[in-house]
Amino acid sequence: MKLYDNKMAPNPRRVRMFIAEKNISYSQAGIELVNVDIAKGETFSETFKKMSPYGGLPVLELDDGDCITESMAICRYFEELYPEHPLMGVDAKSKAMIEMWNRRIEINLYQSIAMSFRHGNPMWKSVTTQVAEFSQVSGVNADKNIHKLDKHLKHSEYVAGHEFSVADITALCAIDFAKVIGRRINEEKHPHLARWHKQVSARDSAKV
Amino acid sequence: MKLYDNKMAPNPRRVRMFIAEKNISYSQAGIELVNVDIAKGETFSETFKKMSPYGGLPVLELDDGDCITESMAICRYFEELYPEHPLMGVDAKSKAMIEMWNRRIEINLYQSIAMSFRHGNPMWKSVTTQVAEFSQVSGVNADKNIHKLDKHLKHSEYVAGHEFSVADITALCAIDFAKVIGRRINEEKHPHLARWHKQVSARDSAKV
Repeated sequence: MKLYDNKMAPNPRRVRMFIAEKNISYSQAGIELVNVDIAKGETFSETFKKMSPYGGLPVLELDDGDCITESMAICRYFEELYPEHPLMGVDAKSKAMIEMWNRRIEINLYQSIAMSFRHGNPMWKSVTTQVAEFSQVSGVNADKNIHKLDKHLKHSEYVAGHEFSVADITALCAIDFAKVIGRRINEEKHPHLARWHKQVSARDSAKV
Repeated sequence: MKLYDNKMAPNPRRVRMFIAEKNISYSQAGIELVNVDIAKGETFSETFKKMSPYGGLPVLELDDGDCITESMAICRYFEELYPEHPLMGVDAKSKAMIEMWNRRIEINLYQSIAMSFRHGNPMWKSVTTQVAEFSQVSGVNADKNIHKLDKHLKHSEYVAGHEFSVADITALCAIDFAKVIGRRINEEKHPHLARWHKQVSARDSAKV
């Protein structure tokens, strides 16, 4: 199978980090990494649109030609194929709690960062009807959500509790991506987020 | 356990419909439905915020007091507890494909309807920094996504393929919710969506 990837974008990083945490070997699993050059507009090509009609990257092209898009759907595929080192929970309650936290981070933190970037950065001008005021409002929401996550991490080692999970991967990729809108972790302002960020960034998977 | 619910909102409907499709009996499963009056501001009470710190409804309060929010996390909990009548797939590929379609509908169709409503309706004024232009842009995106779903349903019986799944529940709740921004299915303009809508609306679960 082929994993269409990009080293700069946050969503492909989520999937690479997930694969690394599960200790899946690209060669043994038969996964070929294919770089897609976003800056060159390759995600807008007809070939790419056939694989990913909603335009999202990464894409996992299976050996039968079917394509899976949406980072979490690709992660779910690998979680099912390789149940060892579970990152999406092991029973009904932990699966639900991890899904809840992963979605809270996606919908509140990640989305506000992405919307602030998308509606404010010239790079998106040709593909988005940009609303400058919404970019600014989303930036304020990003700050609120960074603060909220800091407060949560005061009482929780990882995002979804005592165990590292896919919710930490989503949160790390979101927090690191926030530099595109000028947000970086401030150790004085966000001590718990900074503690967690240091801890999670030290994992081998954070470097892939 | 208690399921905090509201009969007017689209997200609680997703969970009720999911429970109905799985043939779960409220009394046998020990689920008590508790109405939350959104119009009276009950989702902003301190008691509610403790259960749902990100403000989302529905909430599933477990017997141990822990709370699950996010519709799909609650659905996942029931899918794991009651594996019969699977709505989230049965193997790695079908689980991934259903998750992909569910997310495509959520992120593209559902979000644009919700954003158009939230940024345009006076009801949200006190809790959202509304951006009128973004409401309008989101309405255009909703139209594009309704059209896109119509085209997809030309070649697919259900949203995620040959089987009814949670992606159909999400899509039905989104499409019916679109009336709040003045969008209704137009049989001439969207014949495939209209065919699917009629078929899915006829299910008993669509009435709960």
